[in-house]
Amino acid sequence: MSSGAPLPVSPLAVPFPALPKVAGVRLQTARAGFYAAARDDLLLMRFEGEAACAGVFTRHGVGSAPVDWCKARLPQGHGRARAMLINAGCANSFTGEPGAAAAARSAAAVGAALGCPAEEVLLASTGVIGVLLDDARIAARAGDLVQGEADWEQAARAISTTDTFPKGAGATSEIGGVPVRICGIAKGSGMIAPNMATMLAFVVTDAALSPGVLKSLVRRAAPRTFNAVTVDGDRSTNDTLLVFATGASGAAPISRLSDPRLIPFAAALEGVLLDLALQLVRDGEGATKFVKISVEGARSEASARRIARSIAESPLVKTAFAGEDANWGRIVMAVGKADEPVDRTRLCVRFGPLWAARDGKVASGYDEAAMSAYMKRQELEVAVDVGVGEARADIWTCDLTKQYVAINGDYRS
Amino acid sequence: MSSGAPLPVSPLAVPFPALPKVAGVRLQTARAGFYAAARDDLLLMRFEGEAACAGVFTRHGVGSAPVDWCKARLPQGHGRARAMLINAGCANSFTGEPGAAAAARSAAAVGAALGCPAEEVLLASTGVIGVLLDDARIAARAGDLVQGEADWEQAARAISTTDTFPKGAGATSEIGGVPVRICGIAKGSGMIAPNMATMLAFVVTDAALSPGVLKSLVRRAAPRTFNAVTVDGDRSTNDTLLVFATGASGAAPISRLSDPRLIPFAAALEGVLLDLALQLVRDGEGATKFVKISVEGARSEASARRIARSIAESPLVKTAFAGEDANWGRIVMAVGKADEPVDRTRLCVRFGPLWAARDGKVASGYDEAAMSAYMKRQELEVAVDVGVGEARADIWTCDLTKQYVAINGDYRS
Repeated sequence: MSSGAPLPVSPLAVPFPALPKVAGVRLQTARAGFYAAARDDLLLMRFEGEAACAGVFTRHGVGSAPVDWCKARLPQGHGRARAMLINAGCANSFTGEPGAAAAARSAAAVGAALGCPAEEVLLASTGVIGVLLDDARIAARAGDLVQGEADWEQAARAISTTDTFPKGAGATSEIGGVPVRICGIAKGSGMIAPNMATMLAFVVTDAALSPGVLKSLVRRAAPRTFNAVTVDGDRSTNDTLLVFATGASGAAPISRLSDPRLIPFAAALEGVLLDLALQLVRDGEGATKFVKISVEGARSEASARRIARSIAESPLVKTAFAGEDANWGRIVMAVGKADEPVDRTRLCVRFGPLWAARDGKVASGYDEAAMSAYMKRQELEVAVDVGVGEARADIWTCDLTKQYVAINGDYRS
Repeated sequence: MSSGAPLPVSPLAVPFPALPKVAGVRLQTARAGFYAAARDDLLLMRFEGEAACAGVFTRHGVGSAPVDWCKARLPQGHGRARAMLINAGCANSFTGEPGAAAAARSAAAVGAALGCPAEEVLLASTGVIGVLLDDARIAARAGDLVQGEADWEQAARAISTTDTFPKGAGATSEIGGVPVRICGIAKGSGMIAPNMATMLAFVVTDAALSPGVLKSLVRRAAPRTFNAVTVDGDRSTNDTLLVFATGASGAAPISRLSDPRLIPFAAALEGVLLDLALQLVRDGEGATKFVKISVEGARSEASARRIARSIAESPLVKTAFAGEDANWGRIVMAVGKADEPVDRTRLCVRFGPLWAARDGKVASGYDEAAMSAYMKRQELEVAVDVGVGEARADIWTCDLTKQYVAINGDYRS
């Protein structure tokens, strides 16, 4: 179990935003005591009636009891739910049958307090792997969780593990002229923090969307948002993104993805998801640089994304960022090891506005001093053109610092 | 260009071995001056007559002029050669047509000194990426390289870049009762050292093997030797393994892979390749732990290797080794993210003799104190059984330390 002692706030942190009021959802937090520190570690999101729901879960081969529970409730990745229960401090992952039973009991306890079946309560857990969830601690607080109201920032703090700042994002949009709101929170720093699992994100809108439409919107946005960020390439057993639509805004119900009234809303939702995803990078363990990697001229968007990910996850590239070194040789190395179609005689590498390589050679007029000055910025952009097509993709990442090694290596020593 | 200033010797270093005399090859080193420091940076291996030759090159999509040169000389991965020229200090990678011309001129200069066509001289380069090879510096020393003789340790030192110790291995074997010798050298620390490219390895035997047999032996051994080690998962533009057979031992020529006289020799050759490959891990940048990852119970050997590699290349696993933390939760995470067939209800994780997890749960009798004591060792073994088959594979790696970040991040600062 983590001591819960706070780490220094990331230098890349952003303030928690002012968020609009989303109709049809109430939040409440409580302390189950999974941490020694006096902090809330439970969050219940309860919906008026049943909210439409769509989710994206870890593709991790091992998984966890709460992810299994949600997948069973949302067999096609969408459905409806009355409430969403999240705990921090214990991932209930790699806990076998006893873990599955503990998850079911915690859903039942909250369902009993709400007056609904356990099956209408979704679950997420984050924290230590391999420790059975002590669900009695949750049942003891179920009564407190179904009354009163916490704000989004309190909610974000209650689900944090090694996060150094609470992560929230929101937007207002409209559907057929009626205002709708979108708010969300997320947690995660390394893809897995010290002995902890998990990226979690929960987004609620008061638009009225069918579960199927919601699922399509989430699946479409995921590759450009949560799947476009990487801290260390490590994926957790518990990663979960769930989006809920309460329908309480009074806006017209939407049940077709092609409905033109959905266009501004879809863009706003993607913006909220991207905002949350980028905050995960800003809290990357030990991060001091926020880096956008853009790959252009690729054969396909998927190919561009694989090349960008190869760059973003290369330890040699990431340590060069930490050292403020415009080491384009390592970028070239990472492009090549992606094993994707590239034309090395047309390969170009740019750091912000400065060309490092053009057409497969060092750029004429390469200016080491200007490059070094650029690399001292806190936010960097690296653009690569691989010269074989028209497709592009962006990936966001951070640098790899001694502090990352200290956080992840010195943890128990 | 690197200053050539020496790094502290790796705590995992092994002494350079006493090596047998291989008939039919002579080595010579010289200083071209690619480094400011007074050190040799050229090696010529010259063979009596033509040696059979087989190679494995980087699958890197960008490649380099010397790799292109060798591939053109050995279109099927095998052939014959009179000499092998290696330089350190300049990788001649990402240098376009001028780089290819410089490579050709350096081969021609050595060929002229030896009295053979340029095409009979193979090339390898290691050092800075994106800098054109100054081949005049090599031509100026060609005359010196074709006379006299250096030993294997001098040869290993001449091709080093950021290596902290010279790497050599050898064996004696027999073919049809006649003694044969195998000697080799290698260089490399990170897969790419600071702004440097490359793993290079050169092995010479005085057995008489056809180029095709030699190629088959090398291809068969590569997945279990050089392709079974990883420092940071980064691959270079110049990685090259070349094996030569001079035939000067007097042993019977072998031209069929199924020849039973080849059996002891094949095992000895694989032993030399593995020895060299493991020395690369022992010189992993910043490494303090030498770790063998064994995956058993997999669906296929390739699947076992992919799972082992996922574990070995996970930053969270590698930092846990650095922190002497038996963090089996991270091992489970890395197994899962490999997206290979595993049965999570049968998953077992063992550190040396100590079970951490069995049948998908923490092992009964898990002893944290015993585990912590084990993790303090310099050489560690992690074994994972994924419970779906009979296949197995080993991967060797090292830990990820603050020193790795310092070496690769502080380089130019």
